[in-house]
Amino acid sequence: MSARVELAFEGAVARVSLCHPGKFNAMSRSMWRDLKTSFDAIQQRTDLRCVVVSGKGGHFCAGGDIAEYPAFRFNEVTLREFHESDVWGGLEAMLLCDVPIVAQIDGNCMGAGVEIASCCDIRVAGVSAKFGAPIARLGFPMAPREAQLVAGAVGDLTAREMLLEAAVLDAPMMLVRGFLNSVMADAEVAGEALTRAHRIAALAPQATRLNKQTFREFRRPHAMADGSFYATESIVSQAYAYADSAEHREGIGAFLDKRKPVF
Amino acid sequence: MSARVELAFEGAVARVSLCHPGKFNAMSRSMWRDLKTSFDAIQQRTDLRCVVVSGKGGHFCAGGDIAEYPAFRFNEVTLREFHESDVWGGLEAMLLCDVPIVAQIDGNCMGAGVEIASCCDIRVAGVSAKFGAPIARLGFPMAPREAQLVAGAVGDLTAREMLLEAAVLDAPMMLVRGFLNSVMADAEVAGEALTRAHRIAALAPQATRLNKQTFREFRRPHAMADGSFYATESIVSQAYAYADSAEHREGIGAFLDKRKPVF
Amino acid sequence: MSARVELAFEGAVARVSLCHPGKFNAMSRSMWRDLKTSFDAIQQRTDLRCVVVSGKGGHFCAGGDIAEYPAFRFNEVTLREFHESDVWGGLEAMLLCDVPIVAQIDGNCMGAGVEIASCCDIRVAGVSAKFGAPIARLGFPMAPREAQLVAGAVGDLTAREMLLEAAVLDAPMMLVRGFLNSVMADAEVAGEALTRAHRIAALAPQATRLNKQTFREFRRPHAMADGSFYATESIVSQAYAYADSAEHREGIGAFLDKRKPVF
Repeated sequence: MSARVELAFEGAVARVSLCHPGKFNAMSRSMWRDLKTSFDAIQQRTDLRCVVVSGKGGHFCAGGDIAEYPAFRFNEVTLREFHESDVWGGLEAMLLCDVPIVAQIDGNCMGAGVEIASCCDIRVAGVSAKFGAPIARLGFPMAPREAQLVAGAVGDLTAREMLLEAAVLDAPMMLVRGFLNSVMADAEVAGEALTRAHRIAALAPQATRLNKQTFREFRRPHAMADGSFYATESIVSQAYAYADSAEHREGIGAFLDKRKPVF
Repeated sequence: MSARVELAFEGAVARVSLCHPGKFNAMSRSMWRDLKTSFDAIQQRTDLRCVVVSGKGGHFCAGGDIAEYPAFRFNEVTLREFHESDVWGGLEAMLLCDVPIVAQIDGNCMGAGVEIASCCDIRVAGVSAKFGAPIARLGFPMAPREAQLVAGAVGDLTAREMLLEAAVLDAPMMLVRGFLNSVMADAEVAGEALTRAHRIAALAPQATRLNKQTFREFRRPHAMADGSFYATESIVSQAYAYADSAEHREGIGAFLDKRKPVF
Repeated sequence: MSARVELAFEGAVARVSLCHPGKFNAMSRSMWRDLKTSFDAIQQRTDLRCVVVSGKGGHFCAGGDIAEYPAFRFNEVTLREFHESDVWGGLEAMLLCDVPIVAQIDGNCMGAGVEIASCCDIRVAGVSAKFGAPIARLGFPMAPREAQLVAGAVGDLTAREMLLEAAVLDAPMMLVRGFLNSVMADAEVAGEALTRAHRIAALAPQATRLNKQTFREFRRPHAMADGSFYATESIVSQAYAYADSAEHREGIGAFLDKRKPVF
């Protein structure tokens, strides 16, 4: 019924399902917190060998839940809290997970969907899947940690195309751009994701966790002494000053009013 | 008439045109200074929303203006001044620009052309466009800041192929290599660049500038405390000692004499 | 006869041949030391302009010589010595080489083969070549410096697919992934590698060495004051604690017993 992230186990494979009926699994604040809870739980389970992340109802995730935005986005303090605590809390839990994560990408994979997929180790998608982060239509930028995560996964060229031009790219192009491991008929995506998960689950689990820990080190900015991930503190400190701007209000207001924004 | 970079405005879209008749828009020293002046002016204009960079007469840019080289390249002081002040001055002004930049790439995109295109956010090219940096034929290496810029945009593999082998790659291969957003019939490139510029211009301008500032942070080497871009100071300090070498003189001399260099 | 790395010279082009008859050129400890000796010798020769690395008998390199593993892998001290001294000694000698290196990749290019190819500047492969690092089947992870090297060359997505899923990719896919400069009929690979080597050898040699030195700087982690390459010391210090684990013993034991490992 309500927006939620479900966690289920089938032997050594965990299934994390994004579920927000009627909104293509758009991430609400509580779903971000569910995401963190799910991956924190996965990280505690030493018997798990693979995680599959997917969306319910034929889509991966359409972005954020814009209906919630007026309640917190126009105040710098609550906007920062949303991005740095709720969103990054969920994404960081995925990045800190030592168990391999397979993204099963059906349908829409936009905004938060691209961010969640960027935290996965393996990404398979159906030929009809669509990728983008068209938040410039909504009057706001991508938060720095999230932008650095996405740019690292889709590449600098594609991240700029998605954010500066609000471009939406199809799955075959995202294969060329290096974001996807394979693209197949839509009906085969779930099976392919599970096949890969079982292949991973049959391999040496300690070696796999050590490999993930090693890969994680490469992403860590070398000069940051506090152990924090990704974007530098200086840019993060100023990142949310746009909260109360006219542009931000116009973008989100127009979406909710179902009219075209005027920037 | 003479070598120049033209700056024009059409509403919220600026057009920067590389123009050097008879030389496929090869960049003279004054053109590099023009490039900086143009982008400094663009950066001051808070009403601009997109820039299109293109070349006049069916080519983007064929490289540097080799006819000027004997006047300054064989002395380490003047060579360093050329690269660190003229060339990097122009490129850095592009990199510091908060307005999205679309590269419209027709025909030759070589050497300085690849460097200028590497500073753009979106790159579209005609199917006949050619890319490379065959300066090993001219007896000199790429300056470190420029090499780091280009390697970041074309990828390490392609940068080595261009510089170590003097390879020239076509547009479809540069799409595979991740340098281009799209490749189309030559006659459609100008229209495609403008369409993308107008799409960008209709989006939220403050969000766009914030996104560009965030992307810029990712490129900054984390350990450099002085805020300078790209290559480390240690390598830059020694980068121009080859100025008076026989090889450097032979490469440029042979080109100007229209004979094959002997290295 | 025995496992060896051969070094030969044809004018300004050196040929490094991996040779381990009957084992698809799997790298023994002595071959890693030979590799270092060969590239140290190449680096001393100021007259050389290109190196071609290839394998004997239709394969590049199938990985490590697993028959040797029980003698040293299950003790943390000797395991560390193998990776940090023998393997990294050979790879670092390649990375420190100022002469351009062309990889001629025929047949199997697995594990150590991918690592050696990742140290090359230009990589050409036959359409039948296969790439991977399926050491998770053998119960151990990739050493950190090696993983960082490989991830930098094949990309983060492909490195995770190779290591976490033990995936084997074919040459056309590795072209898409950005690891290969070109793919051709198997019979043409040797000729293509030599053609590229001769093209490089005809170009300006001082400029080429300066370009390689510049590229090397980009790979150096900016925060590391000791000048060491790649992975941070903290992760390297803990990297070999798995030596005596049951999983490690099972993986290698099962391979040598020709049975399927149970993890």
